[in-house]
Amino acid sequence: MAKFAIGVDLGGTNLRIAAVHSSGKVLEKITLGTEVARRDRVIDEMCIAIRDLAARHKAAGALAGMGIGVPGIIDMESGMLRASPNLPGWHDYPVRNEIERRLGTPVILENDGNAAALGEKWLGAASAVEDMCMITMGTGIGGGIVLQGRIWHGMTGMAAELGHVTVEPEGVLCGCGSHGCVEQYASASAIKRMAMEAIASGKAPELARAMSEDPEFSAKAVYQLALQGDEAARQIFRRAGKSLGMLVADLINIFNLPIYVIGGGVASAWDAFAPAMLEEVRLRSYIYKATAPAENARETEDGNIVGEEAPAGPRTIITQAMLGSDAGLIGAARLPMMAHG
Amino acid sequence: MAKFAIGVDLGGTNLRIAAVHSSGKVLEKITLGTEVARRDRVIDEMCIAIRDLAARHKAAGALAGMGIGVPGIIDMESGMLRASPNLPGWHDYPVRNEIERRLGTPVILENDGNAAALGEKWLGAASAVEDMCMITMGTGIGGGIVLQGRIWHGMTGMAAELGHVTVEPEGVLCGCGSHGCVEQYASASAIKRMAMEAIASGKAPELARAMSEDPEFSAKAVYQLALQGDEAARQIFRRAGKSLGMLVADLINIFNLPIYVIGGGVASAWDAFAPAMLEEVRLRSYIYKATAPAENARETEDGNIVGEEAPAGPRTIITQAMLGSDAGLIGAARLPMMAHG
Repeated sequence: MAKFAIGVDLGGTNLRIAAVHSSGKVLEKITLGTEVARRDRVIDEMCIAIRDLAARHKAAGALAGMGIGVPGIIDMESGMLRASPNLPGWHDYPVRNEIERRLGTPVILENDGNAAALGEKWLGAASAVEDMCMITMGTGIGGGIVLQGRIWHGMTGMAAELGHVTVEPEGVLCGCGSHGCVEQYASASAIKRMAMEAIASGKAPELARAMSEDPEFSAKAVYQLALQGDEAARQIFRRAGKSLGMLVADLINIFNLPIYVIGGGVASAWDAFAPAMLEEVRLRSYIYKATAPAENARETEDGNIVGEEAPAGPRTIITQAMLGSDAGLIGAARLPMMAHG
Repeated sequence: MAKFAIGVDLGGTNLRIAAVHSSGKVLEKITLGTEVARRDRVIDEMCIAIRDLAARHKAAGALAGMGIGVPGIIDMESGMLRASPNLPGWHDYPVRNEIERRLGTPVILENDGNAAALGEKWLGAASAVEDMCMITMGTGIGGGIVLQGRIWHGMTGMAAELGHVTVEPEGVLCGCGSHGCVEQYASASAIKRMAMEAIASGKAPELARAMSEDPEFSAKAVYQLALQGDEAARQIFRRAGKSLGMLVADLINIFNLPIYVIGGGVASAWDAFAPAMLEEVRLRSYIYKATAPAENARETEDGNIVGEEAPAGPRTIITQAMLGSDAGLIGAARLPMMAHG
């Protein structure tokens, strides 16, 4: 039977809501700002938009439900947000209860990295497999693990905190209390921090000029310079790629999955960090070496992998996400469809 | 219906074979030497022993089958041993075919770390849960991951190569080609190597004396000195514990499992490495901090955890294996019981 669902991606800056058909078609998508400081109002606006969208698309089929992707650590049992760097002040806020009270119906709350993984599994880069891992490179680093088609939550719903895997034991202090988490080297904030460090060292004149000219200097500006061949900027992305490669190699050695999908805003700088990432993965995972596509392999339009040295047998794919910033939104909408079979 | 199975643990030194009842009772256990250089003869002896044991215990019930735990990377589909540091010369040897040809019946081949994990899950430290991870600290470091009661094999059966997770990016060269794998810091060979390094530095007189007196100087001798309070020996085990703690913290951040079981020969030096391991896990995993048993917690005889500051909710347990060197043998015997329901 045709059905549709509402997906929500509650970010620190934007609140995005979509009606998605069970065929995968996005029926409508709206974006609101998130006034983080006024959480009750954010929830009010979200619920009004959910109701509007649900009413407007009822001709599309039965409403399967609502899925809400939120950044941070969720207590799956109580629906409380336990910690969320991107939603300051929402700590221990009963997000699920507040939404359900307004809508008068159950909703499914999910970590945004998990929702993005499910989105890429459903309609994106991992749609051909049942087991996959997604790494999201945004302000921080998050991720999601899908095993046998379902999100792996772990004991308390905290699984896939991939940003806090150690890549530099004596490295930069992380907000989590540890040192050298991959989030400190391969996230957008890390790229900005490394650029500031390079500028402070006096060895990055182009980065210094870009920063002085741009009040909103960010990872994106560093990427622009890397594209133009600036060595300091290129070096920062190589460092990010190397750190990410250590994480991916660890994941391959632990899981031996068919596909690892790299998403989030920073992933669009793929050409700047991917070579260093793949070099590191080849160094650190003999499982990858035994199962990697040949370096000259390419995918044909009908989905076959061709290349002179393509090895026989199953291959490990490391690839860019396909759904861009919609992965979490689409994955959130997928949640109620799965819950009801 | 009562049944029993034959389990085999094929190690580089010993070949151990047991008949195990479906109730968990070990009916009989025999140990033979492994003449690694004569692989056909090893397989001959194994098969004779399997037949003898099966015949001797047929009164115990129906024979569910045979499970064989082997060290190294197995190609699950072909039953070939792809690589095995502990069985030199067995590379690309069709182990499963050779056994099945002699016995005239199918057998189940499994990586020894996976078999040990299944053993601890069935009758050992993790018998109360469905999801667990085992780390085996032997000559090398291996492991197994059990999810929803079943071994997680990954795409090509190579999952849980836990010894090759990176803990020192610029560290010691590993046989796998990478640098700073945890196996280079927390295995029996690593402990011996670190002791030799300490002796060479001239700062470990007690270790130097122990080595000169003992032609079979090994990790065990280092442990004996650590027990006697020798600072150089204690420092080596702290280093091992710290490295192991990084691995365990990564696994907690990735999986959020209820229990992590530490086994293998080195695990019996628990008191020498566990404090440093737990300190590192607390530093590197806020999931652990949020779910750890209180430091003064202890388990009562009826299985409850008590302690002044024991937090509410599910807890993450890091614990020593219970089955000792029998874990792999018992897990191997469990394989055919599970395969047949």
